[in-house]
Amino acid sequence: MFGKGEEKSAGRLVRRFGGSRVLIHYGGGSAVRSGLLDRVKKSLDGEGVSYIELGGVRPNPRSGLVREGIELCRKEKVDFILAVGGGSAIDSSKAIAAGTLYDGDFWDFYTGKPITEALPVGTILTISAAGSEGSGDSVITNEDGMFKRGASGEAIRPAFSILNPELTETLPAWQTACGITDIIAHLLERYLTNTKDVVTTDRMIEGLMLAMIEEGPKAMDHPDDYEARANIMWAGMMAHNNSCGVGRSQCWNSHDIEHELSALYDCAHGAGLAVTFPAYLTYVWRHDPERLRQLAVRVWGCEDDPENPEAVILEGIGRYRAFLRRIGMPLTLEEIGGREEDIPKLANSACRGNGRGGTLDGFVSLTEEDVANVYRLML
Amino acid sequence: MFGKGEEKSAGRLVRRFGGSRVLIHYGGGSAVRSGLLDRVKKSLDGEGVSYIELGGVRPNPRSGLVREGIELCRKEKVDFILAVGGGSAIDSSKAIAAGTLYDGDFWDFYTGKPITEALPVGTILTISAAGSEGSGDSVITNEDGMFKRGASGEAIRPAFSILNPELTETLPAWQTACGITDIIAHLLERYLTNTKDVVTTDRMIEGLMLAMIEEGPKAMDHPDDYEARANIMWAGMMAHNNSCGVGRSQCWNSHDIEHELSALYDCAHGAGLAVTFPAYLTYVWRHDPERLRQLAVRVWGCEDDPENPEAVILEGIGRYRAFLRRIGMPLTLEEIGGREEDIPKLANSACRGNGRGGTLDGFVSLTEEDVANVYRLML
Repeated sequence: MFGKGEEKSAGRLVRRFGGSRVLIHYGGGSAVRSGLLDRVKKSLDGEGVSYIELGGVRPNPRSGLVREGIELCRKEKVDFILAVGGGSAIDSSKAIAAGTLYDGDFWDFYTGKPITEALPVGTILTISAAGSEGSGDSVITNEDGMFKRGASGEAIRPAFSILNPELTETLPAWQTACGITDIIAHLLERYLTNTKDVVTTDRMIEGLMLAMIEEGPKAMDHPDDYEARANIMWAGMMAHNNSCGVGRSQCWNSHDIEHELSALYDCAHGAGLAVTFPAYLTYVWRHDPERLRQLAVRVWGCEDDPENPEAVILEGIGRYRAFLRRIGMPLTLEEIGGREEDIPKLANSACRGNGRGGTLDGFVSLTEEDVANVYRLML
Repeated sequence: MFGKGEEKSAGRLVRRFGGSRVLIHYGGGSAVRSGLLDRVKKSLDGEGVSYIELGGVRPNPRSGLVREGIELCRKEKVDFILAVGGGSAIDSSKAIAAGTLYDGDFWDFYTGKPITEALPVGTILTISAAGSEGSGDSVITNEDGMFKRGASGEAIRPAFSILNPELTETLPAWQTACGITDIIAHLLERYLTNTKDVVTTDRMIEGLMLAMIEEGPKAMDHPDDYEARANIMWAGMMAHNNSCGVGRSQCWNSHDIEHELSALYDCAHGAGLAVTFPAYLTYVWRHDPERLRQLAVRVWGCEDDPENPEAVILEGIGRYRAFLRRIGMPLTLEEIGGREEDIPKLANSACRGNGRGGTLDGFVSLTEEDVANVYRLML
């Protein structure tokens, strides 16, 4: 459901998807202060749906709160989870939804066990960024070691999502910018493919990136520009519901490299991506100069020069960095609180931590030394 | 489900969406001759799903066969309809699905009654064109007067669709070209909007059109180019599942103008659109020169000249016509068997036939005289 005031549909939608006893799962106080939570509860009341609440989700959502949520859902016989917030509230809700129906420890799903069943999840989105509102993915930070891992499955793709762009108009500029950065990263991860001749999805990805480049600065300059907020919100969902990613290999190396940063320094995921992605592109573009040149020309508007691809590609990466700076994002490790001396540890954790096999495999395969070099490009 | 051999999933998917007694609804002999129907039946047998068959759907599907299908479904207690074919088989299946659960005459849905329930429909697509595999729309020709009307509703959006691009490799070139034309028309109808600042969906539409312009001729020249077929198949679905049409007014005048042609002359819908759409754009571009100029520049690659928009726009329409000719489409009324003397009758039927209110309302509002002028531009 998309549009102004659509949160009033929450009760009706929960009913339609079989919910009668709901856990409302949310983050900090902004959903409370803005009155959003009250409007959602009123909508549930209106349909005779009962509910309990669990707030306190924080950015880079933690395993501890997931366990608390699972216990609560079992005790209270919850049959539907309603996430109110951004990617963190939604990802935490998905983890609770899968964990509640599972006999073992929910973390098993974040180390490779397929998710085959879960309570239905609905979302009321307040930040355009993670795309979790349309995806079957969830990322959680394990507090026992502070590292992030992801889980996926159709069973945790939301039954419905309510996207009201007005709800994002009061976001701080920083969060808006982090969201824009995350959306572009989700598109780039699908763009960096080794599958040949995927013209339709290439063109869709390019179109969505162009929309973000056009609309992102508008939302930064005029936070209450409803149309810009709406364009970003729809792009954020389309960027990650995989309409643009089907039938092509994808590259999640940048996300894996970034997750070490946000886990260790607790920086915003979007900020970590702003630092990571240009460095990653700089390190790997030689793997497929034609694709990276196409990106520079079609998306970043560089003049084409087939005789001198390196110049075109580096200019494209430069424009990407200038765009990130324009919306207020950091570009170096230092700016997110990182330190050069942590690089070996970061690279080791990305490649070998917690069961990883020694390389990051996507568009290219990166050894631990490669990953360390990518981190060095962030200095 | 997308990819080679995916029709083998039919039985499992029917089961997943609650079917146990299926009507397989299809068109002519190609699904039989190619062995597709046998593979589908084997898949259903493998899951213990019983089925009956109703073939004989023809292009511009007719009300009579729909009524036959409804009777059959009631008598045989069918609980799931599986369409095997293109838009005609799927649209006919949707009509049967809604009609079976309705006490009155199914045609009520095609004169404005909302569809609130229907048997679930699955599809196995054999032609990339109509996009009915992803949409909640259906168009049927009423044999009592030979006119076409559409019905819409979430209840008739397919529960699943199986898209195997290989199945389209044996299509005659003519049908491939008609499909490409239809897909571009579905994108243009969404592009012709009066909603301001819809940058994200604009960019998605442009991207999908660029993909069709690139991939269409490849499939024409090399019918067994799997990648081209796959790009076209995904674009056909994305063009009409409304991911690109949400939140913006659309313009279905061209479809309404075309439907009179295919109803009266029984030409292929795609061929009728090839004749109609450039004529329509030529007649209406002054309503929003900026939008039509943007189309010419971004999609048809015309050099921009803000001082002389008419030249840019007409060059864009010219390139569109050249593209249609390149893939073998007709461009004039005569080429589809039309006659100048029918124009008043066509215009009258489009605007006033069967309960219509006198004007066609979309991007612009057209009177009967306007519609006649659009037909004259096809001479």
